[in-house]
Amino acid sequence: MTASPELSARKVSDRVLDYLDRGSALPGDLYTDASLFEDELRAVFQRQWIYAGHVSQLTQPGDFLTVDIGAESAIVIRDGQGGIKGVHNVCRHRGAQLVEESRGNARRFVCPYHQWTYGLDGALTGAPRMTDDFDKSRFPLRTVHTSEWNGLVFVNFSPGDVESLPGLLAESAELMAPFEIASARIAHTEVYDVAANWKLVWENSQECYHCNANHPEFTRTFDMRSFQNDTAISLLSFSGDRRMQCGTFPMKTGARSLTMTGAPASGRQLGQFDNGRDPYTAATHLKPGFATVFSPDYGIAFTDVPRSVNHTEVRVQWLVHADAEAGVDYNVENLKRVWDVTNLQDWALCQSVQRGVASEAFEPGPLSLDEASVAGFYHSYAAMMAAAGL
Amino acid sequence: MTASPELSARKVSDRVLDYLDRGSALPGDLYTDASLFEDELRAVFQRQWIYAGHVSQLTQPGDFLTVDIGAESAIVIRDGQGGIKGVHNVCRHRGAQLVEESRGNARRFVCPYHQWTYGLDGALTGAPRMTDDFDKSRFPLRTVHTSEWNGLVFVNFSPGDVESLPGLLAESAELMAPFEIASARIAHTEVYDVAANWKLVWENSQECYHCNANHPEFTRTFDMRSFQNDTAISLLSFSGDRRMQCGTFPMKTGARSLTMTGAPASGRQLGQFDNGRDPYTAATHLKPGFATVFSPDYGIAFTDVPRSVNHTEVRVQWLVHADAEAGVDYNVENLKRVWDVTNLQDWALCQSVQRGVASEAFEPGPLSLDEASVAGFYHSYAAMMAAAGL
Amino acid sequence: MTASPELSARKVSDRVLDYLDRGSALPGDLYTDASLFEDELRAVFQRQWIYAGHVSQLTQPGDFLTVDIGAESAIVIRDGQGGIKGVHNVCRHRGAQLVEESRGNARRFVCPYHQWTYGLDGALTGAPRMTDDFDKSRFPLRTVHTSEWNGLVFVNFSPGDVESLPGLLAESAELMAPFEIASARIAHTEVYDVAANWKLVWENSQECYHCNANHPEFTRTFDMRSFQNDTAISLLSFSGDRRMQCGTFPMKTGARSLTMTGAPASGRQLGQFDNGRDPYTAATHLKPGFATVFSPDYGIAFTDVPRSVNHTEVRVQWLVHADAEAGVDYNVENLKRVWDVTNLQDWALCQSVQRGVASEAFEPGPLSLDEASVAGFYHSYAAMMAAAGL
Repeated sequence: MTASPELSARKVSDRVLDYLDRGSALPGDLYTDASLFEDELRAVFQRQWIYAGHVSQLTQPGDFLTVDIGAESAIVIRDGQGGIKGVHNVCRHRGAQLVEESRGNARRFVCPYHQWTYGLDGALTGAPRMTDDFDKSRFPLRTVHTSEWNGLVFVNFSPGDVESLPGLLAESAELMAPFEIASARIAHTEVYDVAANWKLVWENSQECYHCNANHPEFTRTFDMRSFQNDTAISLLSFSGDRRMQCGTFPMKTGARSLTMTGAPASGRQLGQFDNGRDPYTAATHLKPGFATVFSPDYGIAFTDVPRSVNHTEVRVQWLVHADAEAGVDYNVENLKRVWDVTNLQDWALCQSVQRGVASEAFEPGPLSLDEASVAGFYHSYAAMMAAAGL
Repeated sequence: MTASPELSARKVSDRVLDYLDRGSALPGDLYTDASLFEDELRAVFQRQWIYAGHVSQLTQPGDFLTVDIGAESAIVIRDGQGGIKGVHNVCRHRGAQLVEESRGNARRFVCPYHQWTYGLDGALTGAPRMTDDFDKSRFPLRTVHTSEWNGLVFVNFSPGDVESLPGLLAESAELMAPFEIASARIAHTEVYDVAANWKLVWENSQECYHCNANHPEFTRTFDMRSFQNDTAISLLSFSGDRRMQCGTFPMKTGARSLTMTGAPASGRQLGQFDNGRDPYTAATHLKPGFATVFSPDYGIAFTDVPRSVNHTEVRVQWLVHADAEAGVDYNVENLKRVWDVTNLQDWALCQSVQRGVASEAFEPGPLSLDEASVAGFYHSYAAMMAAAGL
Repeated sequence: MTASPELSARKVSDRVLDYLDRGSALPGDLYTDASLFEDELRAVFQRQWIYAGHVSQLTQPGDFLTVDIGAESAIVIRDGQGGIKGVHNVCRHRGAQLVEESRGNARRFVCPYHQWTYGLDGALTGAPRMTDDFDKSRFPLRTVHTSEWNGLVFVNFSPGDVESLPGLLAESAELMAPFEIASARIAHTEVYDVAANWKLVWENSQECYHCNANHPEFTRTFDMRSFQNDTAISLLSFSGDRRMQCGTFPMKTGARSLTMTGAPASGRQLGQFDNGRDPYTAATHLKPGFATVFSPDYGIAFTDVPRSVNHTEVRVQWLVHADAEAGVDYNVENLKRVWDVTNLQDWALCQSVQRGVASEAFEPGPLSLDEASVAGFYHSYAAMMAAAGL
């Protein structure tokens, strides 16, 4: 495949900045060019922090999660010393994947093909029938960076040094602290297939210009006016390059949680909100793929997983207090409902845009006053691409 | 994707003319090269007249049809002044498609994403929350050319000026006039998926060299000898570049309609044939995608819609007199049968050719005496490609 | 599509030889690059001998088989003089395929499209409605080379001269003679879809380093130690470029056939083993696509058919003595079981490797002492690619 003429002629980051200067949406080739998509996988998704899961999934030595992005697969392991270790899910012998499961527990990792065996630290401990000069110490599983923030575990496939994840998210720390996310657990997971480019999924999540007409359930509790410009969101904060963005989600009067009715979905409140602090709902985004929104009783973790230039998998986890009991403290259908219906409404919109921007007739239009955060996303995208020289 | 070496080295129109000079079929890469297919979408299908539908589908203000070709989608609208308006189905803001339905009625077009609102004339009438200097008059829906001929509505995605559709079809006017197509209506529609290049579908429809062995139902009434050379078809006429071609379909003795038995399929005759004029069956083709065949009691409108280099969607509408009543004047199964079985027989043949011409061993052979119209199609194809500099 | 940077910069055969020198597996792009795959189809599969079927399928004049590789399709015909003729399954007129069936009997081949008719020798005998100067003798079906070895029929799509098949397989002749394969017949066929590159399927079949942990059924009778290095396999022999490789399959004590229990699967023994010769199990491979393994009572013929860069169709035929009667001498479920379960175990491994080698983190590791034949396959691959200048 070959890039579009514009993509071949100029850096994509420079083009994006030009459109940003004009207050415009982005041109169609950024959402339809398959070679650009391959570049994005390598330059963005394999160089940035990607959400892997929640620490409650990694409590015992040998507990592991896998994370797949493009052709890459990582295993995130609770090792024997209580740390978290990330390794490529690729045997050092012939390349077979060590595990196929998305989650499990292992005492060691044995390649299914020829039984090369690795410890929880990734060291090669067994390789039958090799030559006498074979040195096992030269063939540990290749490392993937990991980091934890508020109980949320991330990986980074960069081969070299990486930025500090807590550093990147520092400005969100105080905002999210009361939810004590680390002491929650995952009550439910949904995986959505969206026939749209991953950037359209992000853009959709960045503005509520579309909410009034499209999200009657969501706007029962969410006070849409707060999204009408960036500064209206209480405590809004973002990093210089806009990869990190956080703020409270102002709620309508009387709403105590982002649910169908405003009543909490879980009877077991999270964290410090049990101790009298004024409850609120807050969100933190970390491009390119992660967003989380917490109310005092439950939260969600979104992951935007690019699958092809026009196909994205969105994974959503619902988190509740570790001690909340299904059927007693919460009901899964009720817990997931407002985000599930909102998501499905959004995917139809994203898919419509994907079809429309493929037209030769599409010229990106001016952004509205309510789309400043879409411009913020463009900014973060340009920054991530520029960092890779693209 | 990259073009085949021959396609890279020479204009495809020149190559086609060389094969035409030799009386030969065309080489395999013209049916298998994915980059050529992309060129054809842009150079041919987005620059020529494409059938959209019948005026009976656009009787009331706000009635609309959509037409999709490649990445393009048009909305064809009966506007408030009784005219027909064509617009791109792409919002001027972020590019969402305004309508997903293939047909409907709208008082105005409201983008599902952010409620930008357009009148039936395509003018932007509402766009909430824009900056003060936003000028709605600069953002009408982009226009698609439309034209009507005998009640058949066509669109043309060309950005610039376009040829006159009635001018292109002028020589067919007298031939088709008695059917009074404009006063018919659509009784039935079938959509076929054909695993073959769109040009193979056309070539198949251009000759009856294959009819005797393959179409027992069709040849009960159709007098195949008439196809044995071009001049044998009564009244045969075509434009200089062969995009337009028309003529009568000679019928076997006793046949009064192109049906399974030769008896009319609809008891309500079309147009002037009720008034004593000698009935006949006639066809008109307009490349790249349209063909119609009318008998005195019913007609069909074929559309050849390219989907990928080796996949074509063929849509067939069956038209009857506007006053003909289903179950009384005609029975849909009987009405559609002869063309439906003939189509299915043809698609199997087209698919076999698609597989065969992909072989490196395929050398195009000489055309028979009965394939002059296939050469005519090649001629029209070369002309359309040459017009785009290809 | 464009080749990976390494593939663009150097001949693939030279790169493979470098990895061979280091005793290493091959890098990932050889299994994931779509343009390399297209090269392999043309340079390897369309230039080498490909298994078509068994002579028992071609006993009567007009009996035919078809063989499909990539875009090519051949018809292998028992002609009227008792010989075997190979032709391209492509009509010389417009390119339709003459037959769709994988097997059949024909008195002549009539193109379904326009009834061009060919004799069993491929000569064009009828073509209606051509011009007076049309010379049928100029349009025979294009020839595909065929050859027979021990009752196994092969085709070769090379346009020019080809090597002698019996010459290539000469060193296997004595080893396979006792099975009298020509007098067997096909009792059963399975077709497997494997989501892995065709070379991974071969590499899997070349070593038993993976057998102990993965193939409990197979290793009940197969004496795995024999695979632990090349020289341990009795009678092991191979051609200089390793395309041909053959040897006995040492069996565990007491096993008389490669079955679930070691007992024969067919009560009707093959060939000379009825006459007191010490029974054995033996295998012969012929790259790029063929392998056969015979025990004294039954044998299998494997064919590795590349479908795309990451998808391979494997066809396996089970052969028994021509006079063996289903339900009496053998039971199909029992006959096929050991290879069927072994195959399914292997495909999961091949698919795991396909996923793993796509990672940017994959570096090919050192081959074990038990993978000398994998290196042999790499050698044959380099030789076949080098022969095509790649």
